[in-house]
Amino acid sequence: MALIVQKYGGTSVSDVERINNVAERIIKEYKKGNQMVIVVSAMGDTTDKLIELMNQITSNPDPREADMLLTTGEQVSIALLSMAIQAKGYKAVSLTGSQVQIKTNDHHSRAEIMQIDTARLKAELAEGKIVVVAGFQGINSRNDFTTLGRGGSDTTAVALAAALKADRCEIYSDVDGIYTTDPRLVPEASKLDFISYEEMLELASLGAKVLHPRSVELAKFYNIKLYIASSFNDQPGTMVGGMDKMERKRSVTGVTADKEQVKVTVTKVPDQPGVAGRLFSKLAENNINVDMIIQNLQHNNKNDITFTLHSNDLDKGIKVIEKIAEELGAENVYIDNDVAKVSIVGAGMITTPGTAARMFNILGEYNINIQMISTADIKVSCIIEKKHADLAVKVLHEGFELDKLEF
Amino acid sequence: MALIVQKYGGTSVSDVERINNVAERIIKEYKKGNQMVIVVSAMGDTTDKLIELMNQITSNPDPREADMLLTTGEQVSIALLSMAIQAKGYKAVSLTGSQVQIKTNDHHSRAEIMQIDTARLKAELAEGKIVVVAGFQGINSRNDFTTLGRGGSDTTAVALAAALKADRCEIYSDVDGIYTTDPRLVPEASKLDFISYEEMLELASLGAKVLHPRSVELAKFYNIKLYIASSFNDQPGTMVGGMDKMERKRSVTGVTADKEQVKVTVTKVPDQPGVAGRLFSKLAENNINVDMIIQNLQHNNKNDITFTLHSNDLDKGIKVIEKIAEELGAENVYIDNDVAKVSIVGAGMITTPGTAARMFNILGEYNINIQMISTADIKVSCIIEKKHADLAVKVLHEGFELDKLEF
Repeated sequence: MALIVQKYGGTSVSDVERINNVAERIIKEYKKGNQMVIVVSAMGDTTDKLIELMNQITSNPDPREADMLLTTGEQVSIALLSMAIQAKGYKAVSLTGSQVQIKTNDHHSRAEIMQIDTARLKAELAEGKIVVVAGFQGINSRNDFTTLGRGGSDTTAVALAAALKADRCEIYSDVDGIYTTDPRLVPEASKLDFISYEEMLELASLGAKVLHPRSVELAKFYNIKLYIASSFNDQPGTMVGGMDKMERKRSVTGVTADKEQVKVTVTKVPDQPGVAGRLFSKLAENNINVDMIIQNLQHNNKNDITFTLHSNDLDKGIKVIEKIAEELGAENVYIDNDVAKVSIVGAGMITTPGTAARMFNILGEYNINIQMISTADIKVSCIIEKKHADLAVKVLHEGFELDKLEF
Repeated sequence: MALIVQKYGGTSVSDVERINNVAERIIKEYKKGNQMVIVVSAMGDTTDKLIELMNQITSNPDPREADMLLTTGEQVSIALLSMAIQAKGYKAVSLTGSQVQIKTNDHHSRAEIMQIDTARLKAELAEGKIVVVAGFQGINSRNDFTTLGRGGSDTTAVALAAALKADRCEIYSDVDGIYTTDPRLVPEASKLDFISYEEMLELASLGAKVLHPRSVELAKFYNIKLYIASSFNDQPGTMVGGMDKMERKRSVTGVTADKEQVKVTVTKVPDQPGVAGRLFSKLAENNINVDMIIQNLQHNNKNDITFTLHSNDLDKGIKVIEKIAEELGAENVYIDNDVAKVSIVGAGMITTPGTAARMFNILGEYNINIQMISTADIKVSCIIEKKHADLAVKVLHEGFELDKLEF
């Protein structure tokens, strides 16, 4: 008998038929003698609809009240899924974040899980029930409802798997696994049967929307294997696990493109110690995540500082940037929306020299100009013109022979 | 400075515009220096939509899961109303039944409030906040969400007013007060400025859908005056309070018709002790409420037992009735759907003899045949043919001169 945590995304429970389908999948595992803890997201576009309603009332909602509103989405889906399981003759019980006691800090709309009380969960499991838990939500020390922000339900699932010392943690959505690149863009993309936490982290933060990085971080920290598969078919998915398990020859595992980047250049910043620190700590204070950074010292002792941020952060960021640029005595601020970040990821890079160079060569062959480069242990990213992004992914995928991947 | 509890029904918060309107009304009272505790129902037809969704999954939902589902409706409206108040520049906080700690018994879908913890409410009020509480819901001893059933939000408001020793309890809906009869039926109906708990109770249980009897009972028990008015205008409403406050001459306060009655006759039941007891206790066991009862002993030592029940209970009731009728050796069971109950209500009846006779005479003048009669302290009800119901209300309203009511 295994204890299995399964998570089903919003698309997997978007209507009654799909809820019934998910119920069947759960029951199938339960009938094998497993204990089942299920995490669900809100149905389909429920959260978007609630946000739309909220925006009709205020453009600047109190985060506490926004969380009060949004946590209803998952509460609806856990109740309906429990009923669907019961209607098929099996015992089920739904629990909200507050009923489980998923304790978070006070950061409404992006709370972090601090502790999970397993007493109620274990009591319900001991009664033979399938336990259906609301994803994305918890409570803070005041007993107020919090939401975990992006990737919240995945994080709930991994955290529950850790707290319960589950044997398996399975993440189901409308995506049937992790691919070497976006299969909608490159039909030759291969599905991976295994990917390391580290590679998945790079892929997730680089724009592959299957699994949020924070849930991968958490899984890595607690060494919980994640199985990523589709709730719409029985195709084998992808296992995400520890790097040491790998015995493969490939140097590059995946190629991604992120088109939601903006390049900002602050020109002719006087070269004084701490200038970059002041700029970027100011941005951090305002919760603006900066991705790639390049600083060029010019011969006139003035610096050009170039960096990228997510296009969602631009509106908020531009005011902060212009203010600090003025304070620093910079000449100008230029914004370039017309960029994309293309990245290759692979744990094998560590032991395969020349991978970055090979990437630059491939892009060069196709006359794709590289504006910025950033390298890390297991990834290389290049900022290029946005119009070349799709082509770049295609030629890199082909150039690294990811369509011929052998497992 | 007064502590005011206001309750707004689902129609009053059915869209963003109405929510904003309600926010304005609350702020108006708050600005006078009052402490405000607001109870809201789910927006418009939210609850109906959730029930529809539930029925697509199962015709027989687990009451616990149904409550899990339905309590989301009020959670949405408290969040939105709080945001609307905040957007207008005032402090507000929303609280669910579980956050307030509105403790109920375990009867899912029809729970009764056992105790209300006022600590959180008082702490929020002390911070100058307008507190917005979810109506209709509470938690049981397992920390599971319960709903209070019909009239639940009114009951929440009255119970909060009692627990907080509020100065006023105001119930706002799309109805602007209590009328002598249904104004859609009788345009001459007068709005009452005052009605006693007792009269209101009779009117409420007789089909005037303004205020649920249980909330009136609770208000009477704690001696809390209820002010019933519309959230759509500033017309004066109706105060519901203790009988001793009345110094009026009218004997009859209101006329109602209930067309959702069914008359059941069990014929030729052998006359043995305990026969009626067996029949009606069996019905009670099955949660079927019987209203009026008549028993006629025939000369052959056989009884005809006639009673009425709500048409909603007929499907469930008929099986029970036929089974017990057979056990009792009765000859037959007749069902008559074609009936209505017309009632007059008035605390003045107690001191005005002949009111019932006057009612029978008025009905007689219009050739409306009376099939059953039931009298109580402050009401008289008659079962008549359904097709005469509207006429009966009209002529009784006129006959008792309720259109000329003076206050």
